[in-house]
Order: sequence, then C-alpha cells, then structure tokens
Amino acid sequence: MPPQRATLLQVAQRAGVSRSTASFVLAGRHLDMRISEDARQRVLRAAQELDYRPNLMARSLRTKVTRTIALVSDTLASDPYAGRVIQGALAAAVAHGHLLFIGESEGDPVIEEKLISDFLDRQVDAFLYASMSTRYVRLPKQLKGRTVVLLNCLTRGPSPAQHQVIPDELAAGWSAATTLIESGHRGGIHLVGSPGAFAGKERLAGIREGLTAADTRLAGTIECDWWPEPAYEAVSRALAGGLNPQALICLNDRIALGTYQALREAGRSIPDDVSVISFDDSELAAWLRPQLTSISLPHYQLGWQAVEKLLGPPSDPAVSRLPMPVRRRDSIGKPPVR
Amino acid sequence: MPPQRATLLQVAQRAGVSRSTASFVLAGRHLDMRISEDARQRVLRAAQELDYRPNLMARSLRTKVTRTIALVSDTLASDPYAGRVIQGALAAAVAHGHLLFIGESEGDPVIEEKLISDFLDRQVDAFLYASMSTRYVRLPKQLKGRTVVLLNCLTRGPSPAQHQVIPDELAAGWSAATTLIESGHRGGIHLVGSPGAFAGKERLAGIREGLTAADTRLAGTIECDWWPEPAYEAVSRALAGGLNPQALICLNDRIALGTYQALREAGRSIPDDVSVISFDDSELAAWLRPQLTSISLPHYQLGWQAVEKLLGPPSDPAVSRLPMPVRRRDSIGKPPVR
Repeated sequence: MPPQRATLLQVAQRAGVSRSTASFVLAGRHLDMRISEDARQRVLRAAQELDYRPNLMARSLRTKVTRTIALVSDTLASDPYAGRVIQGALAAAVAHGHLLFIGESEGDPVIEEKLISDFLDRQVDAFLYASMSTRYVRLPKQLKGRTVVLLNCLTRGPSPAQHQVIPDELAAGWSAATTLIESGHRGGIHLVGSPGAFAGKERLAGIREGLTAADTRLAGTIECDWWPEPAYEAVSRALAGGLNPQALICLNDRIALGTYQALREAGRSIPDDVSVISFDDSELAAWLRPQLTSISLPHYQLGWQAVEKLLGPPSDPAVSRLPMPVRRRDSIGKPPVR
Repeated sequence: MPPQRATLLQVAQRAGVSRSTASFVLAGRHLDMRISEDARQRVLRAAQELDYRPNLMARSLRTKVTRTIALVSDTLASDPYAGRVIQGALAAAVAHGHLLFIGESEGDPVIEEKLISDFLDRQVDAFLYASMSTRYVRLPKQLKGRTVVLLNCLTRGPSPAQHQVIPDELAAGWSAATTLIESGHRGGIHLVGSPGAFAGKERLAGIREGLTAADTRLAGTIECDWWPEPAYEAVSRALAGGLNPQALICLNDRIALGTYQALREAGRSIPDDVSVISFDDSELAAWLRPQLTSISLPHYQLGWQAVEKLLGPPSDPAVSRLPMPVRRRDSIGKPPVR
C-alpha cells in the first residue's frame, strides 16, 4: 500500500487549530487573517511532521492550472541526436515549476489526435509541438487557440499565430562557406548530399550567399542521401571518375563519415589534400580522425528556448532562429598548392 | 482563449434529459438505471456534437487513478543511445491507456527528491526508476511502498521488493566469446576496455565463461576508458609494443571505433588480420567499414518490458534479464594462418 497522504484536517488537529486556520497559514495568508505567530508556527511544524503536501489535483480543479506541459512530437524522443532537446525542455520546465509529459505520434495523424485528446483530458497548461527534422507543419485543429510553441518546425503564412523556434540553418550555411574562405579556399569547393528537405535547402542557400560574397561559387554537387553508406559510394564514384576537390561541404556529419571513408580509401589526406566541413556537430564529429569541423545544431537551446517562449513573459508570436556555432577542429587546412 | 470545454450539463440540456441521466448514459449504466434507448441515443449524439470529454481530473479525485506514470532517471532522457528506451516505454504506456511524464535528476539526490515530490503532487499512478548505465541503486525513500519498476538498475539484497528490468550482460559476454569460437578462434583473443562498472564486469565474466567452456582463455587485456580516443591510443600503443592479436573483444562500440582507427593506421586489416567484436550495437556499428559485429543492447525492449511489469498483470517482483542478440556483420573472419 502506498503511504497515505496526510490531510489538511490532520495537520489542523495536530496543531490544535481549525481547518480554515491551517489552510490560511499554508496559503501564506496569516497576516490578512490575523493568525497568531504561535498558531502559525504550530501549523508549519505539524505540516512538516506529517509530510503534508497540498493536493495539487484538487487545487487544479479550482484554479484550472496543472503546471504541466506536454511535448507532442513525431519521433523526437527516440531520435538519438535529439535527447538534448528534451533535456533543454526539461530543464526550462523545471525552472518554471512545471513538469513535462512526452508523447510520440510516429507521424500518424490518428495517433496524434488521440494523444492530444489524452493530454487535454489531463488539462495540461500548454503544448510544445515538435518535429524531429526542421520542416513546415500544419498545427492540429485541437491545438488551435491553445498555448502552443512550435519546436523545430514552423507554419506557412505571413505572420505566425504561435512562437516557432528553429535553428538558423541559413546562417549556418553562410558560416560553413566563410570558414572555408577564411582558410584561403576559393575554388574546387563541392557540396556532398542532396539538399532535399528544409534544412538542406537553407544550408545550401546560406552556402551560396557566403561564397558569392567572396566572389566565388560551388564547383559542383555530389548527390546522395544523408547517411554514411550512400555518401561513401557517391564520393568514391566521384573520385574514381577523376574529381579532384579542394574542399567538401557535407550536409551532415553522417555524410561526412562516409566521405572520410571514401577519401581514405582513395588515398586522399584530410586536411592536406582535401578540407572537409559539415553540419550538426553530433558526437561523431569529435570521434573522427582527424576531428571534424562542424556547424552545431543547438539541440539543448531549442528545447530550452521553446519552453521559455511557452512559460516566460508573454511576447508577440514570431519565428526565433537560434544561432548554430562553428565547432572548429582539425579537418580544414589551406588549399593545396597545385 | 482556449476553446471552452463542454460541460455535462450542456450535453444534458442539448439531449433534453437531466444531468444525472446524461451522466449514467456516459458511464454506460443505462441498463441499471432503466434509461430508454431513445434518451441514450440523444445523449450520445449531443456528447459527440459538443465534443464532450469527461473531466479526467475531477474523476481522478474520486477514483484516485490518474492514468499517468512517471519516468524518473539520472540522465536517461538525454543519452543519445537511450532514446529507444523512452520510445519503448511510451509505446507500452499508450497501449495501457497511460501517459508518461519524464524527469531527470542529473544524479543529484536533492533534485531527485523534488522531482518525485512534484510527481506525487500530481498523483501519478506508478513510477519507472531508471538509470542510464546499468548499476546498483538505493530506491529513494519517497518511492518505498509505491508502485515502482526499476529500469536498467537493480537493488542489492536477496529478494527484490520491485520488478527490475536489466539487459542480460552475462549472457552477452558468453555470446561474444562463442561467436569468436564458432569462427575458429582459440588463441590471441584480447579484451579492449577496462571492465570497471556493472556492465563491464558482467560482460567480462560471461566472456571468461564462454572461453573456458571452449578450453581457452583471454590472452590479455588492453585497458582503456570506454571512448574512441582512449581506445585508439591504448590499442596503438599495444600494437607498437609488438602485440599481434588474432581477435579483439571491445567492451562497447565506441571502443571499437578507436580500435578500428588504431588497426587501420598500423596497417592491420579487419577481419583478415584481426577479428573485432563489440557490445551495444549502436548506430555506429553499421556505419563502420567493415561493418561491426556487435551484441545488441535491447533499448526498446527495456522500456517496453519495464512498463509491462508496471501496468500489466501483477506478478511477484523479480529481476528480468532481457536477451542481447548478436548482430552479425563483417568484422569477424577465420583466424589468420601463421
């Protein structure tokens, strides 16, 4: 049997006061109610001795505030790189005295609807609506009019109805380009990866802007999916076909891993023959040899800032683009003299 | 403003019945209460049209069941390899009609106590008490007498007071040894990694048993922490010192990554010169070249089974050791002819 909860009445009896006196003391209203300091001390001591905890559920029925928020995502909770999003959200929620429910729809709208209904039944105060990969979404009907912040996703249209917190992928692309430029690179810069989805398109647009600003441009693109094996195969094929790149911008770290493997097998040295830069700054980046320079996805900050927008001081809904810092390591050198 | 919840009274008024008639219909008690089929249909239609949802919070106050569970962990939520534990726990919780709170203590007992109190204030029905790495724990005082399952951790002592769900590391060690034995290996088998903590000790004990059963034993141990760089350095040093291993058993995949890097730089081919086997079966295992044979940590199953023990049919508390299957890939060959 779970330990029985002490009731307010038990606290009052132990303190030798009425139930309402005990209630006023515990609500901090002893001055209003002209309760003696002696009685107040007895109530506080009794509450401590009985480990009295106010019934938040009963209080919630009166105040309609449960101090809980729900994170509804497609598969965020189970993505290996997104654990820090949850950690950031948890930390900010706790800092605001809230607890966090999580739920995953696995992208199924029927499951999503059921999940949101279940959270509404438990009267959560507010929602984080999250996506594993940055993308445009339609807000579920049930969430319209509720307190919601979009985490790593955004809605189309001129002015957002909710706060939306995403990484600044455009600036990240610019950073990748200028990091190469600053090391003296001008030509022979190739992209690795097909820029299909939102992040890829923004990264590419930023790369193009950064190179254009330095009066140069991409020499070409090695198309592949965002995984090590397709990248290994595509880069191997390109090298076998005579490609002689000076620098490769990989659209994520998994692509960079496959790129490292292909360059090594082809006998090209990083960074002496070829410089490599990438995006995400996953754990992998620091584990590769040489360590990989990568533009960091601010996972923890995404979670933290989304909850800040949800529970912090009110402000007009807007899209917040969080900075993606460059983690400089050992994969970029000067261009080879040819 | 959030959409207003329809009340039971509104449903009753729309259906043209009394509040108590509507209540009985929605509780499925129309037969007991001799309510006409016509009235029942009107109530159900009204409830649907108004999108009426019973107030679970109010019901919880009466039934003392909130259909929520809490996962309290040290840093499980933010470990990149543990997202699938949460996914398994979520899926099982939803299958039982429960929702999941999560909270992290970051190993701080003060934060843990506050967290558990906060969950108790919200009257969660049951707790998962989880650890990122498999280890012995003391159950927090506040959880004594509550419905709790230990996830990836266990208590000392003869008979457990709660269900405890952990991976079967001992059998995993045995599997690693016999996988090498089956490929013809007998000698020159070295361990890589210091078997400090629980998982390491159990893995090593299993390896020893498996080798002993085949009349052989470990030829030596290359001590290092469980990360790529220390493993790279330790294995490089051992090879430079003249070590000529036939097979390396790495205590996790991160160690295997560093081991791959060291073998490659020393010009040893995997698996022609040296076979490599590892534990965890993280994403990395399938990304290495050659792909790494690894004994899989059953993350999803840990989460799922822990919730099954919590919400499924009652049974006597026991330690459940979940199987760790071998993922055979390309890193094991026959021993070289010397």
